[in-house]
Amino acid sequence: SINAERLFSRLTKLGQIGRDGDGKLTRLAATDTDKAGRDAVVVWMKEAGLEIAIDRIGNIFGIWRSPDAEDQAPILMGSHIDTVINAGIYDGCYGVLAGIEVIKTLREAGVVPSRPIAVAAFTNEEGVRYAPDMMGSLVFAGGLPVEEALATVGIDGTLLGAELERIGYAGTEDPGFLQPHAYVELHIEQGPVLERMGISIGAVENLQGISWQRITIEGVANHAGTTPMAMRRDAGHAAARVVTFLHDRAISSTTPTVATVGCLHFEPSAINVIPSRATFTVDLRDPNEQRLKDEEAALADYLEKLAAAEEVCITAERLARFEPVIFDDNIAELVECAADRRGLSSKRMTSGAGHDAQMIARICPTAMVFVPSVGGISHNPREYTSESDLVAGANVLLDVVSRLAGV
Amino acid sequence: SINAERLFSRLTKLGQIGRDGDGKLTRLAATDTDKAGRDAVVVWMKEAGLEIAIDRIGNIFGIWRSPDAEDQAPILMGSHIDTVINAGIYDGCYGVLAGIEVIKTLREAGVVPSRPIAVAAFTNEEGVRYAPDMMGSLVFAGGLPVEEALATVGIDGTLLGAELERIGYAGTEDPGFLQPHAYVELHIEQGPVLERMGISIGAVENLQGISWQRITIEGVANHAGTTPMAMRRDAGHAAARVVTFLHDRAISSTTPTVATVGCLHFEPSAINVIPSRATFTVDLRDPNEQRLKDEEAALADYLEKLAAAEEVCITAERLARFEPVIFDDNIAELVECAADRRGLSSKRMTSGAGHDAQMIARICPTAMVFVPSVGGISHNPREYTSESDLVAGANVLLDVVSRLAGV
Ligand SMILES: NC(=O)NCCC(=O)O
Ligand SMILES: NC(=O)NCCC(=O)O
Repeated sequence: SINAERLFSRLTKLGQIGRDGDGKLTRLAATDTDKAGRDAVVVWMKEAGLEIAIDRIGNIFGIWRSPDAEDQAPILMGSHIDTVINAGIYDGCYGVLAGIEVIKTLREAGVVPSRPIAVAAFTNEEGVRYAPDMMGSLVFAGGLPVEEALATVGIDGTLLGAELERIGYAGTEDPGFLQPHAYVELHIEQGPVLERMGISIGAVENLQGISWQRITIEGVANHAGTTPMAMRRDAGHAAARVVTFLHDRAISSTTPTVATVGCLHFEPSAINVIPSRATFTVDLRDPNEQRLKDEEAALADYLEKLAAAEEVCITAERLARFEPVIFDDNIAELVECAADRRGLSSKRMTSGAGHDAQMIARICPTAMVFVPSVGGISHNPREYTSESDLVAGANVLLDVVSRLAGV
Repeated sequence: SINAERLFSRLTKLGQIGRDGDGKLTRLAATDTDKAGRDAVVVWMKEAGLEIAIDRIGNIFGIWRSPDAEDQAPILMGSHIDTVINAGIYDGCYGVLAGIEVIKTLREAGVVPSRPIAVAAFTNEEGVRYAPDMMGSLVFAGGLPVEEALATVGIDGTLLGAELERIGYAGTEDPGFLQPHAYVELHIEQGPVLERMGISIGAVENLQGISWQRITIEGVANHAGTTPMAMRRDAGHAAARVVTFLHDRAISSTTPTVATVGCLHFEPSAINVIPSRATFTVDLRDPNEQRLKDEEAALADYLEKLAAAEEVCITAERLARFEPVIFDDNIAELVECAADRRGLSSKRMTSGAGHDAQMIARICPTAMVFVPSVGGISHNPREYTSESDLVAGANVLLDVVSRLAGV
């Protein structure tokens, strides 16, 4: 079994890197705080005796090349250490640190695996600074040319490529330099399912589709006091209508579709000026590809009608689009068995969040292990998973990886 | 009659001060660009032979102290030169520059008025950087203690007092050092009424009430992918509901009530995070005080129900509240007569915008002169009034002031 104290202490340490004056944790991809987090992860990987490799999109790999297994495809674990704004300490970091812990535990036990075992920290999983999300794993899996990814412009106007250079994590390996035999990602659930059902381990068998758009509405700025309601072309009001449309449609539906507007900006943003422009993001998700397409179509249709009714101009730009993914059934079964053997309850489940596993599933058999999130809260400083659940998840990861690596 | 070329050339010059790299005009109160605009106005006032006085809230006065009328209360003209964000060149500036032009014209004609004539450029009329709007004239009229006004914190976190010191316009005169006999303000209409009716001159007899609030909604940040719609406490969605509520209520009403949400911010503002906080402004106006109160009450009621339904916490902060104002009937009649004698069509009307005249009406007989705004567009770079209308308005101002000053 893994060393729980070591895992907790590293989770806490990494969770301190990137706190601002108010104590809020924000470690956006390829920022100075991300660099500080990466540096800590590299130290811990080296301390576990791993060989470090960094690819051109900045993914960090710690590789245990067992001498008997030099030419075998490795078993890969991993996740990410970038965060959202005002984040919790578990999302992503748990999977990376547990991966390091699994290898360290195996080495300390003196086992000799019949395949290399590696752990990855993928770049820009959150997608908050640069869209799309899961960018590092997407590039690694060959789903996005590395040059295109490096040229992505962030919400702060920066180029990802330049930022990776700046923080010293623009590596030299070509993405895909490592061809994994299988991939397993351990993650907090970030949703309410496991806690509500009182179950310790999720054997994640699929992951819902994700559609991200940026919508811009152009109206006409005018005076808030003198312009009669009927003569307005109010971009802000039109944007609010889209927010309520998406909400009302999703909440009244019997499907698990979710719709979120996380960013919304008005211009010129003055109290007595009717907004001339509103820009906002739309995050639509559904485990069923056809339903996700239907939701996108319904939104497009609504925007067209709204543009005509409000005499505004509406444009939509795609930021990310990933189809639902089905994970490897054998690995999901290994997860269930491992839980069972450790006396832990488990269930097959769907991931509501996007994960690097979703991308790596393109190139090798993949599945995920979930542990409960208290209150189903994530992307929030109150994100929390109990220590016993954290240990349980890491031990299930240890068992599944041992099995896959022929330990 | 006034010198049209001089007036136009100064309007154009002042309209160049505060343009950014994209050519957008923004001269927020007490910024560096406001200082540059003020400096130009002071030069033009001096060039017209006026004595300059600056009071503690930064209002600039150019005073023509006719030797025969030293001890008489002056006739005051004025308006403001601060702008909104991405503004037009006429709003406010027209009234200040036409005032200087009126005095220069009278002096060049060698007339000797039986009262001093003065022109004011009031501080922070727009209220965009510091609320409330019409702050300089409000302080001058004794409606807000100068210390309190100077301690106002702006949208950029600055203190108005410190900013006035910094730009060299923290004057020494106590607000109210000048007690006007009457006040006349010339302004573009900023609305569609005059143009639609084909009328040249508005004799403004009243001004609607203004209610400004800042509303903050606190929800709970959570993951956009994993949080079922029914479990969300989405501050952004709740804010959008308020925007559509205000719009639907105002547009379906038979009264002239207007409601505007000009600013709206989400936090943490990340694409895959349900907003934990939304902050927005509400600008409500109505010429009838009881109706304005009813609108405020309806909003408060809605916010209370919304807070319960969406499980969010809502707080409202008052930023400005001014009752409707009735102007002086005699001065409005002088405006009509002056238009008539110059062969210009005119009509009595209500001001939809707030103006310094609204504050000065507390301390002396006051009215306003409006000229048409093409397309009813203001607080927008496309704000435009034809040269003939600008000249007509300035000549009406000349005639009314001459009459009031006993020329
Ligand atoms: N796990 C996680 O929060 N991923 C970020 C991408 C997303 O699902 O929005
Ligand atoms: N005239 C004018 O635009 N005043 C600004 C105050 C307001 O009415 O919002």
